[in-house]
Amino acid sequence: MAETTSSDTTTRTVRAAYFVSDSTGITAETLGNALLANFPGLVFVKHTVPFVDAVDTATTVAGQIAQDAANGLEPLVFTTAKNPAVRTVLTSAPATHIDLLSGHLSELAEALGTPPSEQLGQFHTLGDATEYFARMRAVEYAIEHDDGQSSRALDLADVIIVAPSRCGKTPTTMYLALQYGLLVANYPLTDDDFPTDELPPLIRPYAARCFGLTTTPLRLSQVRHERRPDSRYSSLAQCTTELRRAERLYARNAIPFLNSSTKSVEEMSAVILHSLGLRR
Amino acid sequence: MAETTSSDTTTRTVRAAYFVSDSTGITAETLGNALLANFPGLVFVKHTVPFVDAVDTATTVAGQIAQDAANGLEPLVFTTAKNPAVRTVLTSAPATHIDLLSGHLSELAEALGTPPSEQLGQFHTLGDATEYFARMRAVEYAIEHDDGQSSRALDLADVIIVAPSRCGKTPTTMYLALQYGLLVANYPLTDDDFPTDELPPLIRPYAARCFGLTTTPLRLSQVRHERRPDSRYSSLAQCTTELRRAERLYARNAIPFLNSSTKSVEEMSAVILHSLGLRR
Repeated sequence: MAETTSSDTTTRTVRAAYFVSDSTGITAETLGNALLANFPGLVFVKHTVPFVDAVDTATTVAGQIAQDAANGLEPLVFTTAKNPAVRTVLTSAPATHIDLLSGHLSELAEALGTPPSEQLGQFHTLGDATEYFARMRAVEYAIEHDDGQSSRALDLADVIIVAPSRCGKTPTTMYLALQYGLLVANYPLTDDDFPTDELPPLIRPYAARCFGLTTTPLRLSQVRHERRPDSRYSSLAQCTTELRRAERLYARNAIPFLNSSTKSVEEMSAVILHSLGLRR
Repeated sequence: MAETTSSDTTTRTVRAAYFVSDSTGITAETLGNALLANFPGLVFVKHTVPFVDAVDTATTVAGQIAQDAANGLEPLVFTTAKNPAVRTVLTSAPATHIDLLSGHLSELAEALGTPPSEQLGQFHTLGDATEYFARMRAVEYAIEHDDGQSSRALDLADVIIVAPSRCGKTPTTMYLALQYGLLVANYPLTDDDFPTDELPPLIRPYAARCFGLTTTPLRLSQVRHERRPDSRYSSLAQCTTELRRAERLYARNAIPFLNSSTKSVEEMSAVILHSLGLRR
């Protein structure tokens, strides 16, 4: 087994992990990573290999896996490929093979009383034009309504994310738009908004669709420091004040909110959908 | 079994599908949908239920599943929940249960010679701050460099997506930024760019990082019609000309390109990464 020396001078084993797909690789990568996250003590060198839909590409991948095996990386291979010939070539490589789909597909076929389609994995291909238009429109809406830049179509927003600068509004907005086709605006809370504890006039009519973000003062100060080092804006005092005021404003206006400091964009998005009762 | 009458007047069976997770639900939803896509003849009413990490929430979900079962929707339940008490409650519901993780987790534990961590599914929680900053920066870069708006930091772009208006540049740009933390700019090709077959001067120095999009004239005309109905811009003649010129420009400048008309944003992103040799 290959070994690496980490910064605390203990040695940790390193293994190769391959996510192999006949399509985009998104399913293999998502589930493979979810599985590997259960083994936090190990180090994996990860490779996503999409579009393995023929024997020649499968042979190339199998060769690379064999090379890693020869180098002591004891490869793990997670696959969602459906083609039997491709699967035969892949499983000939010296590795631990985890077939992510076919077992479940058999269970499902039995439950549904119908065999699976012969097509390749087609989940991440274009479903229908309507969905495509919805996503395109949502992303454009999010760009137009980023950071309070426009109030043109605020009344159409499914969600308005509210927070002081640098709490994670923009990435969360884009994720919700892209992933779920929702119309998401975001609005920055600044010192000007804090003479009272009321919502800024522009978004006040839409309080029921607002969701607040907060973070820890230290984290906010670090993030702001990246943008404007050693400024009042990035000072711990200013960050502490803004966050305290924002949280009070959320509470007074019954705006649900979450702390973004320990959450990923995906997780925040899931909480927001759940909290506002939006369907995904 | 519940039945619905579709537009072609044949009856199709409808079943409920639940994606249940103790975390965001993203893994359950991704894999569950990938599996269901293999049964294109059936209709599923889908429910994603995140944050089912305690017996009380599991009991609520089990009740909803039982209700669907009573209504003849023969529920399928895809779960990634790890907590044994939660799983016991869920599996008590009258449904076909497909456990997406635990079987693979046992395989993996055996291959790795170490038991899985006792924690909940933590894959979609915040990994490290570095990755978070990278995504935030990438999304901001994408907004700033959308539609040729800025050339401030074009030299930093990992990818520059080039295409006539409405071929899908913006959603693909955002997906690459959010999902992979890449710096992605996009640049519109307009009539002004076609006196010659050369790349526009602004992006010419970065030809090796350019990727082109095209589509079908009919599709482009439909999409443009949504924005400006009955205009020269949306006419089939204009769309045909622009696409033909764009494709010739890509070919002359050795810019790889793909046709977006039959591809999802995820699939285009996977092709672009693969084609430009970018690591995910």
